[in-house]
Amino acid sequence: MQEMNDFTFQNTTDLRFGRNLIEDQLRDVITGFGNKVLFVYGGGSIKRSGLYDQVMRLLAGMDVIELAGVEPNPKIESVRAGQELAKQHDIDVILAIGGGSVIDAAKVIGSAKFYDGDPWDLVEDSAKRQTIGQVPLVDILTLSATGTEMNKGSVISNMAENKKLGTMGPNTPAVSFLDPANTLTVSKWQTAAGSIDIFSHLTEQYFDRAYTPVTDNMIEGLMRTVIANAPIALAHPDDYNARGALMFTSTTALNGLVSSGNENGWTVHPIEHELSAYYDITHGVGLGILTPRWMKQVLDETSQAKFAKLARNVWDIHEDDDMLAAKQAIQATYDWVKSLDVPTVLQDVNIPDNSNFQAMAESAVAVGNLDKVAYKKLTPADVVELFEASMTTEGFE
Amino acid sequence: MQEMNDFTFQNTTDLRFGRNLIEDQLRDVITGFGNKVLFVYGGGSIKRSGLYDQVMRLLAGMDVIELAGVEPNPKIESVRAGQELAKQHDIDVILAIGGGSVIDAAKVIGSAKFYDGDPWDLVEDSAKRQTIGQVPLVDILTLSATGTEMNKGSVISNMAENKKLGTMGPNTPAVSFLDPANTLTVSKWQTAAGSIDIFSHLTEQYFDRAYTPVTDNMIEGLMRTVIANAPIALAHPDDYNARGALMFTSTTALNGLVSSGNENGWTVHPIEHELSAYYDITHGVGLGILTPRWMKQVLDETSQAKFAKLARNVWDIHEDDDMLAAKQAIQATYDWVKSLDVPTVLQDVNIPDNSNFQAMAESAVAVGNLDKVAYKKLTPADVVELFEASMTTEGFE
Repeated sequence: MQEMNDFTFQNTTDLRFGRNLIEDQLRDVITGFGNKVLFVYGGGSIKRSGLYDQVMRLLAGMDVIELAGVEPNPKIESVRAGQELAKQHDIDVILAIGGGSVIDAAKVIGSAKFYDGDPWDLVEDSAKRQTIGQVPLVDILTLSATGTEMNKGSVISNMAENKKLGTMGPNTPAVSFLDPANTLTVSKWQTAAGSIDIFSHLTEQYFDRAYTPVTDNMIEGLMRTVIANAPIALAHPDDYNARGALMFTSTTALNGLVSSGNENGWTVHPIEHELSAYYDITHGVGLGILTPRWMKQVLDETSQAKFAKLARNVWDIHEDDDMLAAKQAIQATYDWVKSLDVPTVLQDVNIPDNSNFQAMAESAVAVGNLDKVAYKKLTPADVVELFEASMTTEGFE
Repeated sequence: MQEMNDFTFQNTTDLRFGRNLIEDQLRDVITGFGNKVLFVYGGGSIKRSGLYDQVMRLLAGMDVIELAGVEPNPKIESVRAGQELAKQHDIDVILAIGGGSVIDAAKVIGSAKFYDGDPWDLVEDSAKRQTIGQVPLVDILTLSATGTEMNKGSVISNMAENKKLGTMGPNTPAVSFLDPANTLTVSKWQTAAGSIDIFSHLTEQYFDRAYTPVTDNMIEGLMRTVIANAPIALAHPDDYNARGALMFTSTTALNGLVSSGNENGWTVHPIEHELSAYYDITHGVGLGILTPRWMKQVLDETSQAKFAKLARNVWDIHEDDDMLAAKQAIQATYDWVKSLDVPTVLQDVNIPDNSNFQAMAESAVAVGNLDKVAYKKLTPADVVELFEASMTTEGFE
């Protein structure tokens, strides 16, 4: 019998969940860290929603420096711009308002303030970040997806090098404001993509070779929550509860708790990062295309019991035969993704042919160590096969 | 539609789960807080197991003051003794090795060092504790049950006043070492009682009138874990994985996460505390007797849907009618408790008659505000009825 692995878990982020808590709390939280604030955000949505005006009113009289325009799949150029502002103004605290992209960029800027070289060095080598300090981060989440609001990770893209890499800082955000009302205007496309991202985080952590009797069952509960609430949020964008369920699930799914004792690296994320790096597609949509095919690829006699557990506890499939139950769970996963009204083949996200498959596969295997630490070890040829399978609905429809 | 409640969540405890991590980590952890250590423990079990000798070796050369003999249902006298030692030696850190009783007492001692009055004042009035400081606590858990290793709570008994009260400090433990191997020698009685305690924490938080779409599903997963692993640990006391599953579940069940957004007070715990206060019975055994009867008492048309959800997602009961499913879930709960080989009626824990029922009921309602904030509001007469129902197996066998 395989023994539970040793692990450590600590996550100090202060979550503030609910309606408009910033009105009474934001200024106190920010001033707790200092007076010079780097305010990082993305496009104009927070101006349209009134959130920008509210925050500027709440921080009136403080020294607020703005870094606007952080893009989806945040680019290293934004981090460089933030580094310059952070150094120039000797900022005390970063306030990030946005989704995963904005918060991810803000985390690396928080490290880059204390680094004199190009911040891409910090992305490529997380170890460098562990001792150089990090500006405290306060965030107001506006998109439920990546879980960045309660973890140490960021994913930064370098389009010049066709690279999209994960990097870990020393700290999680100090304070995260989770107000579902801030996500009521998220588009259907982004809602679907975010929900698939949450689901993918859970599958990446669920399919692990370690024996994890506690977190398996917690993950199943979180999966059921996202599966049930994503369609509600799509059908009723202003449903506060569905938005809230997705928001709290995104946070809980990737704050380190449910991977306690795991031993595998992730698979689908590093593969998807290649798609985004080469074609700048929406991360969650790429995950939705890849995940059911990946499940088929890794289903075998050694994994069927775990897939069958997924079938019974998450998809309510009452089928005694493990392999049959497993296959039904994979089909259910595909059907759920499709029901969210997103593309289900690569051609529909403007990846017209296989011309980059070999290069992307080699990079995914190298970056993700997929041939060494994946749930089922994959070679570049396996990943090419996965990409090829992602160009057809055969076997699913 | 009821809206999700606002909540805050932050828990900074540093968990170290695994085999013998103290050997390499304990001294560094302790010295991080100082050199003067109050070492709190219970009976002789840590001397028989070798843990005492190991810790004294690891802390060799440091200033270690011992407080031994903290009893089950820890008494205020132990806290007073700890207060005196803490003040006299101006301790920097408390090391508590034991189960909930030892750690609970250590937490209040950590506050009492900074208080000049009788520490019972602090138990009766948690608000007093919030600003007076608390000595950092490091613990090594030896019994999976109360979750005290990752929360701010303690329960302290004052036999002279027939009182057993909960009190909250400002901080969770700084570092908790969770080594399942330290629980392999826990008796069947304590293993059963601890598992029932975990299950009760989960039911107290599950049956809440708030709309909690995320934590409901997480709790169901944790319930499945304790239900599955308690019998394994009873049948095979040296099963590291079953012990580990119970340990991590006990911690996760009561660290604040799965009550996020809840609005009710607890019911069964304050009622059981009266039994322990009057008769000094084992807490978890009392909960096991009370819980199925309480479930029957609160099952009605307004609660049947939640009980039916419990039936389907936790007890694998496939029954379409909510009320029938609910009743089967309650029976399953009773059967599970009984399968753990503990008493199922009050007479079998030496509560021979109803002579104290009225007094205990009145106190439970007053202490737990059961007539105001319980899941289903209870009067003293209701609690007397619950006690009476706990003297018969009628309706369950």
